[in-house]
Amino acid sequence: MSFDFLILAPVGSIAALLFAAYLAVSILKKDQGNEKMKEIASAVKIGARAYLKRQYVCVSVFFAVVFTILLILALKNYLVIFVPFAFLTGGLFSGLSGFIGMTIATEASNRTASAAGKSLNSGLRVAFSSGAVMGLVVVGLGLLDLSIWYYFLNWYYSTHPIPVGLDKITAITSTMLCFGMGASSQALFARVGGGIFTKAADVGADLVGKVEAGIPEDDPRNPAVIADNVGDNVGDVAGMGADLYESYVGSIVATSALGVAAGLGIAGVTVPLVMAAVGTVSSIIGTFFVQSKEEASQKVLLAALRKGVFISSALVAVISFFLIWKILGWEHIRVYWAVLSGLIAGILIGLVTEFYTSSSFKPTKSIANASVTGPATVVIEGIAVGMSSTAMPVIIVGAAILASYFLSGGAHNFSTGLYGIAISAVGMLSTLGITLATDAYGPVADNAGGNAQMAGLGPEVRKRTDALDALGNTTAATGKGFAIGSAALTALALIAAYKDQVALYGKEMNLSLMNPAILVGLFIGGMIPFFFCSMTMSAVGRAAGKIVIEVRRQFKEIIGLMAGTAKPDYGRCVEIATIAAQKEMIMPSLLALIAPLAVGLLIGVEGQVGFLTGATVSGFVLAIMMANCGGAWDNAKKYIEEGYHGGKGSLSHKAGVVGDTVGDPFKDTSGPSLNVLIKLMSMVSIVFASFVIKNTLFK
Amino acid sequence: MSFDFLILAPVGSIAALLFAAYLAVSILKKDQGNEKMKEIASAVKIGARAYLKRQYVCVSVFFAVVFTILLILALKNYLVIFVPFAFLTGGLFSGLSGFIGMTIATEASNRTASAAGKSLNSGLRVAFSSGAVMGLVVVGLGLLDLSIWYYFLNWYYSTHPIPVGLDKITAITSTMLCFGMGASSQALFARVGGGIFTKAADVGADLVGKVEAGIPEDDPRNPAVIADNVGDNVGDVAGMGADLYESYVGSIVATSALGVAAGLGIAGVTVPLVMAAVGTVSSIIGTFFVQSKEEASQKVLLAALRKGVFISSALVAVISFFLIWKILGWEHIRVYWAVLSGLIAGILIGLVTEFYTSSSFKPTKSIANASVTGPATVVIEGIAVGMSSTAMPVIIVGAAILASYFLSGGAHNFSTGLYGIAISAVGMLSTLGITLATDAYGPVADNAGGNAQMAGLGPEVRKRTDALDALGNTTAATGKGFAIGSAALTALALIAAYKDQVALYGKEMNLSLMNPAILVGLFIGGMIPFFFCSMTMSAVGRAAGKIVIEVRRQFKEIIGLMAGTAKPDYGRCVEIATIAAQKEMIMPSLLALIAPLAVGLLIGVEGQVGFLTGATVSGFVLAIMMANCGGAWDNAKKYIEEGYHGGKGSLSHKAGVVGDTVGDPFKDTSGPSLNVLIKLMSMVSIVFASFVIKNTLFK
Repeated sequence: MSFDFLILAPVGSIAALLFAAYLAVSILKKDQGNEKMKEIASAVKIGARAYLKRQYVCVSVFFAVVFTILLILALKNYLVIFVPFAFLTGGLFSGLSGFIGMTIATEASNRTASAAGKSLNSGLRVAFSSGAVMGLVVVGLGLLDLSIWYYFLNWYYSTHPIPVGLDKITAITSTMLCFGMGASSQALFARVGGGIFTKAADVGADLVGKVEAGIPEDDPRNPAVIADNVGDNVGDVAGMGADLYESYVGSIVATSALGVAAGLGIAGVTVPLVMAAVGTVSSIIGTFFVQSKEEASQKVLLAALRKGVFISSALVAVISFFLIWKILGWEHIRVYWAVLSGLIAGILIGLVTEFYTSSSFKPTKSIANASVTGPATVVIEGIAVGMSSTAMPVIIVGAAILASYFLSGGAHNFSTGLYGIAISAVGMLSTLGITLATDAYGPVADNAGGNAQMAGLGPEVRKRTDALDALGNTTAATGKGFAIGSAALTALALIAAYKDQVALYGKEMNLSLMNPAILVGLFIGGMIPFFFCSMTMSAVGRAAGKIVIEVRRQFKEIIGLMAGTAKPDYGRCVEIATIAAQKEMIMPSLLALIAPLAVGLLIGVEGQVGFLTGATVSGFVLAIMMANCGGAWDNAKKYIEEGYHGGKGSLSHKAGVVGDTVGDPFKDTSGPSLNVLIKLMSMVSIVFASFVIKNTLFK
Repeated sequence: MSFDFLILAPVGSIAALLFAAYLAVSILKKDQGNEKMKEIASAVKIGARAYLKRQYVCVSVFFAVVFTILLILALKNYLVIFVPFAFLTGGLFSGLSGFIGMTIATEASNRTASAAGKSLNSGLRVAFSSGAVMGLVVVGLGLLDLSIWYYFLNWYYSTHPIPVGLDKITAITSTMLCFGMGASSQALFARVGGGIFTKAADVGADLVGKVEAGIPEDDPRNPAVIADNVGDNVGDVAGMGADLYESYVGSIVATSALGVAAGLGIAGVTVPLVMAAVGTVSSIIGTFFVQSKEEASQKVLLAALRKGVFISSALVAVISFFLIWKILGWEHIRVYWAVLSGLIAGILIGLVTEFYTSSSFKPTKSIANASVTGPATVVIEGIAVGMSSTAMPVIIVGAAILASYFLSGGAHNFSTGLYGIAISAVGMLSTLGITLATDAYGPVADNAGGNAQMAGLGPEVRKRTDALDALGNTTAATGKGFAIGSAALTALALIAAYKDQVALYGKEMNLSLMNPAILVGLFIGGMIPFFFCSMTMSAVGRAAGKIVIEVRRQFKEIIGLMAGTAKPDYGRCVEIATIAAQKEMIMPSLLALIAPLAVGLLIGVEGQVGFLTGATVSGFVLAIMMANCGGAWDNAKKYIEEGYHGGKGSLSHKAGVVGDTVGDPFKDTSGPSLNVLIKLMSMVSIVFASFVIKNTLFK
């Protein structure tokens, strides 16, 4: 290699961060709307900051404890000394990208509402730009962290002794692999805590406001309405960002480690990093194509967002061919097909998700139809739709696994095949800058709608923000499909990397399916996502119960509230949701950390591999089911509200609201948290591999 | 061996059948109650017969087609010529045991109601005896079929040439292994068809009767009330019987095959058959201990049933120790611990199920609490309870797998360990005669309650039948836990036997978890139970919709129906449910047959092993979740009806009814059908192994 392609990684990172900064500045320059709009946005911003601040305090305690444990393990030679510090930076950057993305999102809501007052396209541009800031900050900080560690470790091991039994590049990649655990832990807290917050506020607001008091959604008289808007930001923006940050860096470090294990040396590390950099630049280019005409239909708006994603994907598809050729040489050009299969699989999963969750198609309509016979049939039909929606994504991911394994040469060389599977995850995630932008766009548009409603803007503006919001529901659903698909591939790559990591510690494993430890591991792993969902759903129920009591109290005690002459105490609801979310996120998070270690210590590392695989399989299927159930219920309710089956206020509508409420924790708490769960459990296993091997009861 | 222990199998079979006949005759001698009671029972009986008749016609067509396919494969040397005939007898005996059990159950409902007029104990004895007929017929016919085939094949291969490459005992066991497919297919139709029938009728009756018209459950004015009672018999009695018949014979043939593969020869075949025989006699003895005092509480009644089960289990535990010692010799006495672990695991799963589904404990109470905030929170909390209830059964089964593998010597000899796992399933199922009796008791008591209600018997009798019915809900839930646990172990034994079967055809497999075909198989297999549940739940929804329309029509068109002066057309509802169930059961059943073959043909036998394992893992977890969700919702509703949270007619009660209705297809259609699904898919793979190996795209 005459040219050091690796330099593209920091270059791509800087480009992403600079462009994000440019977008952020241009958003902040936009008109903020009238005083009322500013006031509402400010309340949401303050609430969201207060939540994140408390969350970071809570997470800091956790990080301090785990850092200490890792430091002790490092001093006892279970780990390389850099691991505890890599753990810290992973957590720091992940938290930072969530914070920045969320800050811009809260700034963008009233500005989007104000821009929508001018034209639909202006509104779309502001909301989408805010999403793009999130997307580009995630990929920019991810690449930055990876680059810093790579260059540092490369320098260090060039000037200091390399750990016994390893070569330089293996020493680098096996250390970097551990760095994902920080990002994973941060992501889990963000997803679980944010998810509980957002749905406790949402469910609580709806149960008392819509159902009991009969006031509309986003009504300023509802004391939980600001908390609900805060929730969109802390759950759907910050949580989603941290989740995908984690997939992004996780897939890159796992691929690097597998590339080295496959004997590709530094080129195996260069490819994923450079592909990520190319994807970043392609994403930036793609953002310029997201434009809309005035009075566009849903279809046209969706096509506008899709155009950006497709152009970015096409750019990656073309450029990565030449890069892989140059970096790996013509003899490894087959790896390119793995990239392509991941890229295509990501797009296909999005399309399938749209089919199952959009009211333009049969599945969601069938749920709306079931509303005629009441809430029970809505729930039954919704669960049936969610369950049947798991088939295609599983087949798509299965096809991507087989294609990337065999096309990249797995039939002749097992390790190359695993590298192919891992790189298909990198291919899927390479355009994250723009796919995450379309995704984070959703809550911004949702908040803009809320802002317009609460500020009492005119029907024309409301119509436009409604159009933007409805589009956001579709992109949120497809974004979830993408997040789950990439999480599954990343988790598989991490499991494969775990196997290699265990081998580095000199332990050979019997990975036969007939090994009873593997079987038992598969069963326990298959159960864990269910148990985890049970914890997070109960948590939402309990937290929502507290909001319900508070909203009822305010309705009763604040005189003139319903007449509109007195203002509710929004802050109190935000505070209650914050405290409840922080309390409730601890147990599920501990489960994710302790379960894989407990399995490893009790039934051995082979059982642990079975456990991780079982959790990935059932977690993947369950996550798709829950996300799509929730999306379909939400849109079925909206479809009824458009006037079908009796429209708003009918018994059918009431039944539809029940489905939507059940779907809330499904799609925004439990389902998305599963993505992080399966990755974090693999990460924890990797980091503690040496400890588990030496201390397991079951050798 | 001086004494041929195998003779105990036919002896046990005859004992079971004779005792069942004695019980049946004694039930038929009981007082049938007044004319009204006889009339109602007769309507249910006629409906149930009509359903089963149509089902058997439909299934016959299926059996004829598959028989022909198997015959062609046999003639082309893919299969031994006996397989198609074994397939037929398996289906025949399975269907016969369902038919006999259901006939007695329909005869017992009015007799139980009448006996309950005398005393609680009399009612209990009649209902329980009827359940015992079912249990003993299942084990009796199962052992009979197995004995006939064993003795026939043993004679045949003693006097005719043995297939090339096999020894006599392998030839016998590998043929008998295929015989389970007939039983599995029959069981699937019984579970799916019966499950759709029963819940379509139940949901349809409730939606129009309870919710729209406001008349109580089991009200004779409801046109779907007889169909609902018929459903209990065809779904919960005949379906459950066929399911467990299948587990019973499946676990025995799989254990026999694995015993031979482990080099235990004929002794390896003798042990499971003889243990089953011992369990049968122990079950008969156990039935004598099921007695109750007058005015007994729920706890005392449950203890009465439990006493019978515990005494039978203790007898098996003691006797099988000596039998294994005598048959396998002292050097294999460790196999005994595997038996014991299965026996204990079965009992523990039952206790855990009771904890999660009985309103005496926290989980079900928490669902009732959630009713205060409406149907959405009832559904969320119910799903959370169902999901968290999966943890303990998985851990119990995991512990049983590891214990039976290692205690029986798997660490030194892999094949012996697999034999241990299989024999733990036989241990769990050995007392099936009595566990199934307690289970089939439930629907009989339920029907007796319905009979007493419709016939307008006095409050004292109603109180007693209510007590018997409430007990039936608990035993039905624990019975389901037991059915699922035994199905999971049986499926594992079948998968292990499949691996050996493939080896007999000369194909060596790479069963590493990192084999991409295995990974993809695991993913697809993990998804199939979800997809299958989606199909069966939608089917219930569609079929219930037809009942709803019919009930509404009758309420509208039959003048004097609500006043009680005119009678509804019960037969029409039965007919509609029958036709709908027959139509709807076809697609899910075809999925179970085609999916494993499609996977095998597309991604090879290794992918197929992954597929079966993935389906067993996720099917097991999902089945527990669905069964327990449903049971807990049902009992939470009953708890509210006892007067908590506002009692009958309150908003809480309405919310509870929504949960109960959602739970209906969960617990009585989709959940239980999964047991059969996972076993049938393994059976299909075994039978078609040679065909798949030779014709797969992916060698």
